[in-house]
Amino acid sequence: MRIALLLQYDGTGYHGWQIQLEQVTVQGVLEKALKQMYGCHVGLMGSGRTDSGVHALGQVAHYDVDQSDVPPEKIWMALNRMLPKDIRIVASAEVNTDFHSRFSARERSYQYRINTRQNVLDRNMRWYIRYPVDMSRLETTATHIMGRHDFSSFCYAGTETTNMICNVMEASWFKNRDGELMFQVKADRFLHHMVRMLVGCMVEVGRGKWQMDEFQRLLLNPDRKAHVITAPAKGLALMQVAYPPELQPDWTQAERAMGKA
Amino acid sequence: MRIALLLQYDGTGYHGWQIQLEQVTVQGVLEKALKQMYGCHVGLMGSGRTDSGVHALGQVAHYDVDQSDVPPEKIWMALNRMLPKDIRIVASAEVNTDFHSRFSARERSYQYRINTRQNVLDRNMRWYIRYPVDMSRLETTATHIMGRHDFSSFCYAGTETTNMICNVMEASWFKNRDGELMFQVKADRFLHHMVRMLVGCMVEVGRGKWQMDEFQRLLLNPDRKAHVITAPAKGLALMQVAYPPELQPDWTQAERAMGKA
Repeated sequence: MRIALLLQYDGTGYHGWQIQLEQVTVQGVLEKALKQMYGCHVGLMGSGRTDSGVHALGQVAHYDVDQSDVPPEKIWMALNRMLPKDIRIVASAEVNTDFHSRFSARERSYQYRINTRQNVLDRNMRWYIRYPVDMSRLETTATHIMGRHDFSSFCYAGTETTNMICNVMEASWFKNRDGELMFQVKADRFLHHMVRMLVGCMVEVGRGKWQMDEFQRLLLNPDRKAHVITAPAKGLALMQVAYPPELQPDWTQAERAMGKA
Repeated sequence: MRIALLLQYDGTGYHGWQIQLEQVTVQGVLEKALKQMYGCHVGLMGSGRTDSGVHALGQVAHYDVDQSDVPPEKIWMALNRMLPKDIRIVASAEVNTDFHSRFSARERSYQYRINTRQNVLDRNMRWYIRYPVDMSRLETTATHIMGRHDFSSFCYAGTETTNMICNVMEASWFKNRDGELMFQVKADRFLHHMVRMLVGCMVEVGRGKWQMDEFQRLLLNPDRKAHVITAPAKGLALMQVAYPPELQPDWTQAERAMGKA
């Protein structure tokens, strides 16, 4: 049987999602908990990797087991008891074996948060910038990202990917109370460091250091060696992974198991 | 000379503000940094104590030294280098010896934050409640708190204070995006556990467990043995301490010292 998990983590204390030798990673900690629960190694597949220090509020992962003594809709509760407080499973569900957390995903959403006022409580979750940023310049820059583009200029040079085309369905800036700026972006796929590089460069435009056309040129002339600014990992969070309706895991059973619905 | 500090802290890792034997406290860590800077013990006086796990974004404290090699408006930078990342000095200024961080204070403002959706990133800064709360009932309850009252019913039983009268100038609930509820309150003074008890009881009304008049009765019949609910410490933050204009420390020099203004 195949089990899908909906999970959140505070990436501050982890060397990213992906399991690594001699590093504490989210996948590593989760596989340890699964081993404790099932008594044998269980490989976990995430919808995508997140970098060191990047957070997730809507990561999806799946694994296969022969059988589960714990009912699928209650696995999340059992796992949470074995996990540190900075990783929380929100829901669990049995899914069809056609479902694959990574390959079935159709859309991914990220949020990037910036604080323009110092706040010690947000120090691991926001990029704190001390200079003023023009909201309307940020908004205009974001409109250029919308649609299908070759994002080579906004990709980590050491990546293994060759397909650089992403289709961006949403790219918007919001201003919250307390001087917080939030960038929300949704696409079919993202390249390595793409959101952080987009945010880093948009902020250069927003603060007036770059002209708008310098940003546009990076999109029009895809160049993996382009000079770009990468915003810090800590401001980024994976918010949602969307699947086709026929494959979408049913998280509501897990909510009901808690007595919520 | 007397130096005033404007400071922030994440209270998660501390046994409150007040120095204690064999416990890590904010005051204790700050006095250690001051000793390192001045080479002798320097006693620090805060505007008020905060409980274990309570945060501050606008705490004020002062200390006296014979002389300071570091210019007053740059002390905050020097101290930050000796402090852990969860305590940040935002500004420092020389003040008149008439100024006293606690006794000169005229108003104090607190915020209490509640999340109605689980969010691992806010786990140490919000009270997470799983039941629905009626915003208009919260708002109505808050109006009853306004003005001068005997808050005996909302005071920790073990307190040493005898004056139970507080004058509340602001008491308002806000609903932010993402299902966050925020209570903002300002008064001339607060009793021990007062904000947490007010919030705990207002939420009982908001969720429909208490009638409005049960809350009102606690205000009309001051009783230090009243049955009240205390909201968790982690949702609370001291936001601002206000002083009379003639005593108000001038934090702008510190901002200028950073090249901001």
